Formats: sequence, structure tokens, C-alpha cells
Amino acid sequence: MEKTVQSLAQSLAQGHFAAIARALTWVENGSELADDLLRQIHINTQIPVLGITGPPGAGKSTLVNALLNECIAKNQRVAVLAIDPSSPFSKGALLGDRIRMSRHFNHPNVFIRSVASRGALGGLAAKVIEMCDLLKSARFDVVMIETVGVGQSEVEVAALSSKTLVVLVPEAGDEVQQLKSGLMEIADAFALNKADREGAAKFANSLQKTLKDQHKEVPVFQTIADKQQGIAPLYEWLMQPKANDNKQAAELLAEQAYRLIQHQRMQGVDKDILLKQLSEALEHPNFNIYRFIANWV
Amino acid sequence: MEKTVQSLAQSLAQGHFAAIARALTWVENGSELADDLLRQIHINTQIPVLGITGPPGAGKSTLVNALLNECIAKNQRVAVLAIDPSSPFSKGALLGDRIRMSRHFNHPNVFIRSVASRGALGGLAAKVIEMCDLLKSARFDVVMIETVGVGQSEVEVAALSSKTLVVLVPEAGDEVQQLKSGLMEIADAFALNKADREGAAKFANSLQKTLKDQHKEVPVFQTIADKQQGIAPLYEWLMQPKANDNKQAAELLAEQAYRLIQHQRMQGVDKDILLKQLSEALEHPNFNIYRFIANWV
Repeated sequence: MEKTVQSLAQSLAQGHFAAIARALTWVENGSELADDLLRQIHINTQIPVLGITGPPGAGKSTLVNALLNECIAKNQRVAVLAIDPSSPFSKGALLGDRIRMSRHFNHPNVFIRSVASRGALGGLAAKVIEMCDLLKSARFDVVMIETVGVGQSEVEVAALSSKTLVVLVPEAGDEVQQLKSGLMEIADAFALNKADREGAAKFANSLQKTLKDQHKEVPVFQTIADKQQGIAPLYEWLMQPKANDNKQAAELLAEQAYRLIQHQRMQGVDKDILLKQLSEALEHPNFNIYRFIANWV
Repeated sequence: MEKTVQSLAQSLAQGHFAAIARALTWVENGSELADDLLRQIHINTQIPVLGITGPPGAGKSTLVNALLNECIAKNQRVAVLAIDPSSPFSKGALLGDRIRMSRHFNHPNVFIRSVASRGALGGLAAKVIEMCDLLKSARFDVVMIETVGVGQSEVEVAALSSKTLVVLVPEAGDEVQQLKSGLMEIADAFALNKADREGAAKFANSLQKTLKDQHKEVPVFQTIADKQQGIAPLYEWLMQPKANDNKQAAELLAEQAYRLIQHQRMQGVDKDILLKQLSEALEHPNFNIYRFIANWV
């Protein structure tokens, strides 16, 4: 077993796709081997991790695809982790996104993995951190994490990323005020995609004014991802390291460490088992949840 | 010490406000006495817990105030827990809300407590569960939990509540589609407040149509809270027990138990200490976060 883990760590370091896929599956399945492996890999903290988020339908996957074109043209190795919250609202749209992105699925420099996050988000967050670290140990030049801006997932991805790009479309009209404040908070840059649509210039102005009013120096890139327009300057900006990286890096790591510790400490606590036990315990007239959980802590 | 806890549990059961305030403070400060106390109280699971949420400015506090008038008229004892996420966006508005609500602050049947949730939301959620359980042991007829529909707090409150009321205003025009999907998911009922404003009827129709399209049987109440209009039928509906309560009660409890266990198991894990240790550890060339956290799990 120990030998398996060591040789997988080596294959990872050499960037073999089969090894990467296998390691990611270990993490996904919560295998004990994953814990061993993670302690043995060399995680390259210098690799840019780009978080790419935004509301459904903004064209995130098309934009990721356009960014992949840039990577390929520059002969860079790139990994994409596509996180699929699989909520009842967005399921269909996301499956479509995955298929659109698959154009580069067989390119030897492009590794794409889709992760379903249905249900236990707390547990998922830790697994995404672990998957991202595996990718950072596998000789990539850049890692992209794509997620849909629904619920908390975008905030969690921002906590993983060296830079977070929020993708928007001009459909929203001039109602930048309506933009979810969470997205405003996490954006290191905006990509105003489908910038050839009506209302795009007006929306861009409104967004820039809002950012200025909030004293935020956040660039707004206008892109037409399906025509590869506006992608090169965006990609160049994304690949530049952020200023005052050290403090930020430590803060991101502290957040990640907290989640990883929580994940470990909550091993064995299963909501289904709790539900079963509680359904029975509830019958007792003097049931007290604090006495009940005393057996679990 | 044991005697203090016992006598406080007795005073709680008798519904003494000073005892309630003291017990809540124990929980808020994370006192060890709180754990003892919580295991000794008798939590009345039959008490309706009403979650009241909605976007800032919808008039939640005015509506709570109007509901308090109903309680008082019926000679019911009521507790209000007002959760203040204190984010930079909403702070001012919330403080104003608190003051508007304070009309009943000195009524002998009304207990109001404001809880700041700035920062550690994970920890807060557990504390809100504990506070709610203290109130359920203190001879109230109904407990209301008010929170602003920002971020995750409304979902967490829904997990505490027997019924969740989402308060909206017609300002949103006919753009019900823009409504945060999270609010749609958690609502057991909507209160369309300020229903005398222009566009209210149109908005109500649009909301009802959306609910029908989604096959949701969620009532929409039209209220003018500051004139006490439409409040009586809303209150009556809120106080009716939900159908198939037992299954739901067990599921709510399982969710609460999970959070309480997590809170207990994460005792001693401090993000600031993690940050300090990580800032130093990062200097080492072969730093690995999984070896680092091994000391913490």
C-alpha cells in the first residue's frame, strides 16, 4: 500500500494524467490512501489558481474554453476542475456547459475533471481543496476552478483561488445594483462576456461606476468568448501574480487548514445515522438534544 | 456551580426574563456553564419557532412588531431573537430596525434579544440553535427569529424554524425571477409587505404565478405592517402547526445535532492561531498543509 502511494505521488509529480485521475478519485471517494498521498506530494504554491464563477448562463464554460485556447497556444499545461452543484435549478444547464467545454477534452496539455457537489457542501469544500492541491503537485502551469455562482460555492472557490474572475452578461441591463453582493466581494476582475450584445457598453459603464463608488480597483474585461475576442489581455492579467501575495497566501491557507481540520474532525458523523437515531430518541418524553450529542463529541 | 446551573434552569422554566437573559449571555460567551445548563433544561418541542427573513428594507422588523401586537392582544408570551449579520452593507439599516422594533421592549410578555453574528458564522449557527432551545425552555408561547436575507443566515434560520416567512416589498416590480432562489426554497409563506404601494398587486400575481409554475403551495399574504393591516390572518396561519410535522421535526433536529457536534468538535481550533502558525510554516521550502494539520486532528 505504502508503495502504491509513493509511486502514485511520483507519477503525479511527473504529470501523468492517468495518475492524476486516479488520485482525484481517491479523494472523491474519501479513501484513506488519499490522506497518505496528500502528505507525500510536493504542492507547488506558485501555480496560479484561477477561480471562474458567475450566474448560470453567463458563458463561463465558453470563457474557460477560450482561456484554454490561450493556454494551448502558449504550450502551457492546464487543469480544469468544474464544480457542479447539481441543484434542481441548474442541473440541465450545467450538463450542457460540460459538453460545450469538452472540445479540448483530449488535448494532451489539458486535464478536465468534473466534480458533483450535490448535498454535503461542507465535506465537498475540503475535497475541492484536496483536489486542487493534487493538481498543484502535477506539473501544471495553471489550474482553473469553474463553478456556478449559486449559493456558497463561489465564496468557497474564491478562498481557494489566487485570482477570482466573475463572468457576467449584459442581459442584466443597467441593474448592477441587483448583482449579488457576494459576487462583488470576491471578484478580482469581471469578464463582461457576450460584449457584442445590446446594452453591453451601458452595463460596463454602470459596473465600472459602481466599483469606483465602492473604491474598488477591479478591472472589467469585455469578452466575446465564442469568437475568442478580448481573451488574450484577460488571460495575461489572470496569469500575473497578485500584489502582496504573502499575506494573502497565508490567509487562504489558514482558511483551507480550518476546513480540512473540520473535515477530519467530523469523520464518522453521518447525518443519516443522526436522523435515524433522532427519529427514535424523539419518542422519549424527556428527550434533550444536548444529552443526545454528548455521545458524539 | 452545579447549584447555580440548577437554579438557573428552574428560573428559566418559570420564564423569568432576568434568568433568560443570563442564560443567553452564557451561550453567547461560550461559557462552560452553558453546556451544563443546556443538558438540564426541558426543551418544549411543541412551541412554534417562526423564522422571519427577507432582503434589507422589506420591513421585517415592522412586521415583527405587528406580529408582536397580535401576541400581546392574545396575552401570549413571545421571544424574539434578532440576528444581525453586521456586514458592512447592512449595518446601518439593521441598527435602525432594532430601534423601530423596540416599541415593545418593556412589555412584560415580550422578550427581545439581538445577536451579532459578525465573523464566524459556523460558530454562530450553533449558538443560535442553543439560544433558541433556551427560549423553548422558558415558558414562551412562540419564538420568532428574525434575520436579514443576506448570505447563508436565512438558510440557517430556516433550519431552526417550524415555519419560515419571507418578507418582500413590491419595489422589486414584476421581477420575481430575480428573487434569490435561496429565498424561494426556504419560504413556507411570503408576506408581501407595504402592499399599498404601487405595483403590489402586479407583484403578488407574478409571485403567485411563479409559485404555481414551480408546483409550490406557498401562501402569499399581503400586509401593511405599519398599519397593522393583514396581520391577523398571517399570524393565525403562522401559529398553525405544519402538516407531517414528525418527519420534518426529526430532520430539523438531525441538522441541528450535526451543527452542534461540529461546534463541539471544533473547540480549540482558532483561525487566528492557524494564521500565525501558517505564516511561519510557509517559509519552509517543503511545507505541506496535510502534514501541518496532522497536529490538529
